[in-house]
Amino acid sequence: MELPSKYLMEAVEQFNTLPGIGKKTALRLAVHMLGREKEEVEAFSRAFSKLKENVTFCKECGNISDREICDICSSSRRNRSVICVVEDLRDVLAIENTQQYDGLYHVLGGHISPMDGIGPGDLNIDNLLTRAQNGETEEIVLALSTTMEGDSTNFYLYKKLQPFSVNVSTIARGVAIGDELEYTDEVTLGRSIVNRMPYESSISRKE
Amino acid sequence: MELPSKYLMEAVEQFNTLPGIGKKTALRLAVHMLGREKEEVEAFSRAFSKLKENVTFCKECGNISDREICDICSSSRRNRSVICVVEDLRDVLAIENTQQYDGLYHVLGGHISPMDGIGPGDLNIDNLLTRAQNGETEEIVLALSTTMEGDSTNFYLYKKLQPFSVNVSTIARGVAIGDELEYTDEVTLGRSIVNRMPYESSISRKE
Repeated sequence: MELPSKYLMEAVEQFNTLPGIGKKTALRLAVHMLGREKEEVEAFSRAFSKLKENVTFCKECGNISDREICDICSSSRRNRSVICVVEDLRDVLAIENTQQYDGLYHVLGGHISPMDGIGPGDLNIDNLLTRAQNGETEEIVLALSTTMEGDSTNFYLYKKLQPFSVNVSTIARGVAIGDELEYTDEVTLGRSIVNRMPYESSISRKE
Repeated sequence: MELPSKYLMEAVEQFNTLPGIGKKTALRLAVHMLGREKEEVEAFSRAFSKLKENVTFCKECGNISDREICDICSSSRRNRSVICVVEDLRDVLAIENTQQYDGLYHVLGGHISPMDGIGPGDLNIDNLLTRAQNGETEEIVLALSTTMEGDSTNFYLYKKLQPFSVNVSTIARGVAIGDELEYTDEVTLGRSIVNRMPYESSISRKE
């Protein structure tokens, strides 16, 4: 694809670096940008420079924050004895959305993935081990993705947390609420049979 | 969705202004940006400022260009007696890709769309009428989208071009090459029967 302008080419290439945006979409977005007012384009550009300059990470949990300690970590209304370990900000938002959890979080910044060259040292793990020994923490809930990499990361963290006097749990995996059995994949269905639980506990959790 | 940083919120909102990018994708992209090196983010921002500052439109055809007259309009190898009218740059690229057309282009910058408040005055039409009378132009090929708006724009241009001594044609509509008849929509199939052509001409076009 030969573009009639090197500036347009540059803009297309930049959009193309974003995850999930291919050449064709990148071109559509760049042409769209060109049709915008100068001030709008400047506001667009500025947002990303400002993001990179100003956003910091909470010293406690590693989540994105504008302050040194994030709102959740500094809140007096959260249960400080439970820490839920997640991969990134989006997982925090998803769990917060359920309104079923009032503990703290710990954001790893990804999962262990040798294929992508991400080892334990690249993740926010040392800080988690420090927090596990702070005397306040009683339970650590591992809530990584249900993928191969997520599972290995769970296992790595579980091993690392063994020496400390904290309970390590993991979020329940099973048939999603509202799902029909026949359409559930066999691995999920298999696990949910193996990990069956007393019926009474399923009722009390619903209420 | 309450984000833990106003800078992140701003970046998400900016991504969200792009066509086809919803809140969830915008958040994914903004989190991705945050994970990048400072220099990369700056290069990203700069590309759009530079795009808006430097790109101009060809004085002849209205296509995006870094020069006053674009490469196609200034080429001596193009057939200057035919002008193909399209909506935007992407259509030029698509037609150039076919390597079946060696004439000039005229980029309207969109189509007439009263619903979006786009009238004939917002498009690059006056310039087309001037070009139609320049003595060089023998044929004008209308190649707008096969939508309601594209068809109305085609008709508007056809009427406007009537007074001048140019042939006005339109690109062929019909069953796409490789398509099976039973899966072709009825409007297309209907049109392609009404506009049937001598078999000999279909052979000579293929060769």
